[in-house]
Amino acid sequence: MNSFGRIFRISIFGESHGESVGVVIDGCPAGLPLTVEDFLPDLERRKGGKQKGTTPRQEEDLPIFKSGVFHDKTTGAPITILFENKNTRSSDYEKQRDFPRPGHADFVAQKKFGGNEDYRGSGHFSGRLTVSLVAAGVIAKKLLSLKTTHFHDKANNDSASSVQKDETFDGINILSKILEIGGEADLDKGLQKAIDSKDSIGGIIECRVNGLPAGLGEPFFDSVESQIAHIVFAIPAVRGVEFGTGFAAAKMFGSEHNDAIENPEGKTRTNHAGGVVGGLTNGNEMVFRIAIKPTSSTPKEQNTLNWTTGKVENTSVKGRHDLCIALRVPVILESVTAIVLADLMMLEQKIPRVISVSSSVS
Amino acid sequence: MNSFGRIFRISIFGESHGESVGVVIDGCPAGLPLTVEDFLPDLERRKGGKQKGTTPRQEEDLPIFKSGVFHDKTTGAPITILFENKNTRSSDYEKQRDFPRPGHADFVAQKKFGGNEDYRGSGHFSGRLTVSLVAAGVIAKKLLSLKTTHFHDKANNDSASSVQKDETFDGINILSKILEIGGEADLDKGLQKAIDSKDSIGGIIECRVNGLPAGLGEPFFDSVESQIAHIVFAIPAVRGVEFGTGFAAAKMFGSEHNDAIENPEGKTRTNHAGGVVGGLTNGNEMVFRIAIKPTSSTPKEQNTLNWTTGKVENTSVKGRHDLCIALRVPVILESVTAIVLADLMMLEQKIPRVISVSSSVS
Amino acid sequence: MNSFGRIFRISIFGESHGESVGVVIDGCPAGLPLTVEDFLPDLERRKGGKQKGTTPRQEEDLPIFKSGVFHDKTTGAPITILFENKNTRSSDYEKQRDFPRPGHADFVAQKKFGGNEDYRGSGHFSGRLTVSLVAAGVIAKKLLSLKTTHFHDKANNDSASSVQKDETFDGINILSKILEIGGEADLDKGLQKAIDSKDSIGGIIECRVNGLPAGLGEPFFDSVESQIAHIVFAIPAVRGVEFGTGFAAAKMFGSEHNDAIENPEGKTRTNHAGGVVGGLTNGNEMVFRIAIKPTSSTPKEQNTLNWTTGKVENTSVKGRHDLCIALRVPVILESVTAIVLADLMMLEQKIPRVISVSSSVS
Amino acid sequence: MNSFGRIFRISIFGESHGESVGVVIDGCPAGLPLTVEDFLPDLERRKGGKQKGTTPRQEEDLPIFKSGVFHDKTTGAPITILFENKNTRSSDYEKQRDFPRPGHADFVAQKKFGGNEDYRGSGHFSGRLTVSLVAAGVIAKKLLSLKTTHFHDKANNDSASSVQKDETFDGINILSKILEIGGEADLDKGLQKAIDSKDSIGGIIECRVNGLPAGLGEPFFDSVESQIAHIVFAIPAVRGVEFGTGFAAAKMFGSEHNDAIENPEGKTRTNHAGGVVGGLTNGNEMVFRIAIKPTSSTPKEQNTLNWTTGKVENTSVKGRHDLCIALRVPVILESVTAIVLADLMMLEQKIPRVISVSSSVS
Repeated sequence: MNSFGRIFRISIFGESHGESVGVVIDGCPAGLPLTVEDFLPDLERRKGGKQKGTTPRQEEDLPIFKSGVFHDKTTGAPITILFENKNTRSSDYEKQRDFPRPGHADFVAQKKFGGNEDYRGSGHFSGRLTVSLVAAGVIAKKLLSLKTTHFHDKANNDSASSVQKDETFDGINILSKILEIGGEADLDKGLQKAIDSKDSIGGIIECRVNGLPAGLGEPFFDSVESQIAHIVFAIPAVRGVEFGTGFAAAKMFGSEHNDAIENPEGKTRTNHAGGVVGGLTNGNEMVFRIAIKPTSSTPKEQNTLNWTTGKVENTSVKGRHDLCIALRVPVILESVTAIVLADLMMLEQKIPRVISVSSSVS
Repeated sequence: MNSFGRIFRISIFGESHGESVGVVIDGCPAGLPLTVEDFLPDLERRKGGKQKGTTPRQEEDLPIFKSGVFHDKTTGAPITILFENKNTRSSDYEKQRDFPRPGHADFVAQKKFGGNEDYRGSGHFSGRLTVSLVAAGVIAKKLLSLKTTHFHDKANNDSASSVQKDETFDGINILSKILEIGGEADLDKGLQKAIDSKDSIGGIIECRVNGLPAGLGEPFFDSVESQIAHIVFAIPAVRGVEFGTGFAAAKMFGSEHNDAIENPEGKTRTNHAGGVVGGLTNGNEMVFRIAIKPTSSTPKEQNTLNWTTGKVENTSVKGRHDLCIALRVPVILESVTAIVLADLMMLEQKIPRVISVSSSVS
Repeated sequence: MNSFGRIFRISIFGESHGESVGVVIDGCPAGLPLTVEDFLPDLERRKGGKQKGTTPRQEEDLPIFKSGVFHDKTTGAPITILFENKNTRSSDYEKQRDFPRPGHADFVAQKKFGGNEDYRGSGHFSGRLTVSLVAAGVIAKKLLSLKTTHFHDKANNDSASSVQKDETFDGINILSKILEIGGEADLDKGLQKAIDSKDSIGGIIECRVNGLPAGLGEPFFDSVESQIAHIVFAIPAVRGVEFGTGFAAAKMFGSEHNDAIENPEGKTRTNHAGGVVGGLTNGNEMVFRIAIKPTSSTPKEQNTLNWTTGKVENTSVKGRHDLCIALRVPVILESVTAIVLADLMMLEQKIPRVISVSSSVS
Repeated sequence: MNSFGRIFRISIFGESHGESVGVVIDGCPAGLPLTVEDFLPDLERRKGGKQKGTTPRQEEDLPIFKSGVFHDKTTGAPITILFENKNTRSSDYEKQRDFPRPGHADFVAQKKFGGNEDYRGSGHFSGRLTVSLVAAGVIAKKLLSLKTTHFHDKANNDSASSVQKDETFDGINILSKILEIGGEADLDKGLQKAIDSKDSIGGIIECRVNGLPAGLGEPFFDSVESQIAHIVFAIPAVRGVEFGTGFAAAKMFGSEHNDAIENPEGKTRTNHAGGVVGGLTNGNEMVFRIAIKPTSSTPKEQNTLNWTTGKVENTSVKGRHDLCIALRVPVILESVTAIVLADLMMLEQKIPRVISVSSSVS
């Protein structure tokens, strides 16, 4: 399905070279201030064309509100955001229709949809759709940044004077960065390697989340790891995900890997768990990493099947592509993480269904 | 939630030291032959106690059908399977109530459920619940093993003579194995390392699936990778998952990583993609790996908080535990993979809703 | 599917003459006091055998907790409740296998499940499964009966002294009663009519809910009416549902039907809307009615197909049946209503995820 | 939630006086021919302004495809259809902001969304959104109209010559009509009554479905009745739904109400069940009725609260409204019925996931 989430639920649609791409967000609390300006920084981060290694294709990427926003606030009704596809050169792709490009969805899409799919620029499978994820992520991040205080009535006697402060959130902060490109921690060096080889290259991105309460995640199937892994693999080109020490944990002894709990808030001495134990956040920093494969489209010629002749031929993939798609992924990774966490925070009743005037929104 | 799946949908329940654990399977096709004997081999594989490195705790693990099976066949109604917990020694755990065991769900469960959780032996967070996954997996595997032929009517003229054979499935085969223990491909060696150190140890498991049609998986969020990653992280102790070349892909050039398509069935020369492109199966072998952390309970004493005193103390974790939980995971990994694939095959209409007498069931 | 609900989610299973029937409740808040005794009054109300017009079949109907309850409280993990089927006489049904009983699911179940269904006593389609609904309803009612007070921090300055009482719930109360049997408001008279005619008879049940906050229900598809209607039609024998003035509204003028709002809490002068406007509760009493068809099994002989001979024959339906199933429905109607409302109250964050010691549970 | 359906899944969005209303349809089979022209007849039927009794507000209602359609066929990706709101006069509503209109969602929306809702012309609660239901219904109807033949291989020996014709569908036909207006079977008479009284009036609509296979619907909660009732109550102004004999069944004897089965296809002598037994279609005509309340906006002045003064005052509801909204409902009722049935037919594997060239689409 093209939807994700239980309470804060997003549905994305669109094709790379179609009319538009967009997202519908259902279940967003009412009263959240929201303007086009809120979206620009993250949309800018996602764009190619500024860094070496990213595509020269540039979309304006201005979000167009089609529903759910009124007087610069969310209404509680579904929010529809559209992005028009203006900067397309479909002719690049028409020529390649005969060849299912290696590493791309061309072949599998044809098998699944019987040739009816919009094949231009990977159509619905395109990385272009991540603009919708980023837009939904902007809203999720705003929700997570709310500073809230929860109270409870100790004696249940309906008198405000008996109220006890329960817990306070200063907001949740999510930050992704690229750890390495082509195996190099010096990103420029990794990138230059690809440019020199006239080839594309992969990378590894890390995401760190601070300010999380303990207990987010649902046993047995909806652990924080399960949900983040689920949505992370919706980002095109992701090939692996690991939490905390991750694959390295498989080589460790238990006494090394275990994180000693040091205080009643659950602070641990080390953080091999990456902030997730038993599928639930434990109140420490959440840390996870994803692997991004090299862009499938490379400047080099490649072998692949010619559907018309039925033979393997050489072809070069036209179109404007990123040498290293990993460069654009950090903001997308933050976005999908925010989408999962906003949903869990609502389920846990830590984000209210109506944002009141007195709540602070950063 | 404790449920997973869209058409073939499982719900698991139970606690390690409670009355029982079990599973309800909703949406299973009617007419599938099913007896207790079908479950025994996989349940046996999951059990500890035979290999060095696994727990001396032994449950009989006999599945008790409570609904959905009639005359040794599935009826189409929900199948409920119960496993009684007979071999429990809860007293081991009562003593440890003061200490949230490092690496276990004790602390987070208390935070989430306010102290109401059944804390004995990790309660609902226990690896004991994987017996339910294995039981559901047995049914899913039987469905996947069906040999089926699909036909279509070329001219749509309602005459059987115009019928064309569409596609044939010889059944889908899933096989997991342990690649390494504690970093050693010689599993005995890795295990001995832990025994010598009086410590626990982790491992890496690989799963390979053959016989898959191309096109399984749903854009954008329900890719095969998303769904497998989702359910895989429901297995306690999993810390990472990677498909095909996985994390190593992040260091490769595109021209190396791309798998050239060689024939109209989509056979590729190499299989760096691990059989999944664009989130869909591509008809080649599906390959993925998971990392299992070392068992959190170790024979060694560990530092942790004493909830009563509020201080960090030394404690040793009583109970009967596996030195290397990874030893028990291969059959569980096969099971959850089968659960995902059975659901996708039903969605794709490649497993019928009623298994007819003429279908072959292995 | 055999599941219902988004946060408070129930899954039912079982067959009339199988091993057992039962229910799994996922998402129930932790900390709710729960014992077998809580269930007995409503289970008793549902039972036949005491009133004229109900079946002589009597089940003991003792709920057996299989998971999710620990130290007489809910744990937050799935609650599994089993009811054993002790008092069955399947031989009654084996004889009737040749005849799909008119008004029963025999024919459609055979069509859907290809003859694999458990046909004894309607199998999974039996009214016997409503015992699971009543069990889930008992828990839902306990949640709805909680008296809670919500606070908010007017100035968001983290000081308890600035806290304002937000809203108080005294608990939600649900009450169903039979309005008429066979068209007679004098129930005994309606029932006697059926006894005299050696026939079965239908009836109309009304449900009234008090103490509801305004705003429950979700646009566009998950209105209160949509959700109640959905679950109400899961009760066997229901043929219609209407809210407020219902079908009679179709004959009214707008100026008659509209309920004038009289105060800021939304109290209305009349209640033609039955407490639901725009799909949301409006804070007034919720009122709706359902129509129950006469029991399909009648003492009289009936015409139906003989599957073996392919001819229409006379047959009499053996088994022990209610003359008027409507007599047993009021408690079931309350139960399903409570299930819907508990889910909506959790979504609306008006029932907490952990019931604290200071909350009052009636 | 603003989504409905399990496989064929629709999400609607928009507000009466906002930028636009629309729908995303996920899970529609690929290859279905689709053009703007397909939508015009049903959109025309839904429009007001032609009949006496309907609103003079006229929208152009041209569907704009934003995704999922390529070369005049569905692609298998989500289909997004937008309708721009051109013909709005919001100033009518700004004046009424002080008064929650009786019978409208003004009051409950304010309670639920804290005053952030778009209140103009009922905003997201407006009947305007039914244009999205009709658009989705057009696609669902096209799917249901497909003529298909299913085959199975009797001996499972992979030879086309052994293939047996399994079942043939000539397409499913859905037809709604108004049974009465204001209690009058002569619709003009009922309407004139309202015009003469300067008031609004309600009505009753019946829907009949032919060509259904037996066995559609899922026990226990997703019966055909449950699903149709669920979506029917999403249509604004619906107050009741009944199947077959409906509420009248409550007055009948079992021997009268039961429909004798007459042949192996399940044809019944009478159809009191309205084609649904045990929650499943039985292969006979499906018949159900809904009650529509009189339009809440009436030309007459009405009493209601003034939010500013806190007092009850007289107000007249401005805006352009239907005297009898029931006049526009038949096509909407057909649409939502088609949406439910398309989903069930896909679940039952009776509509394929790819529509092949040889399938006939009417």
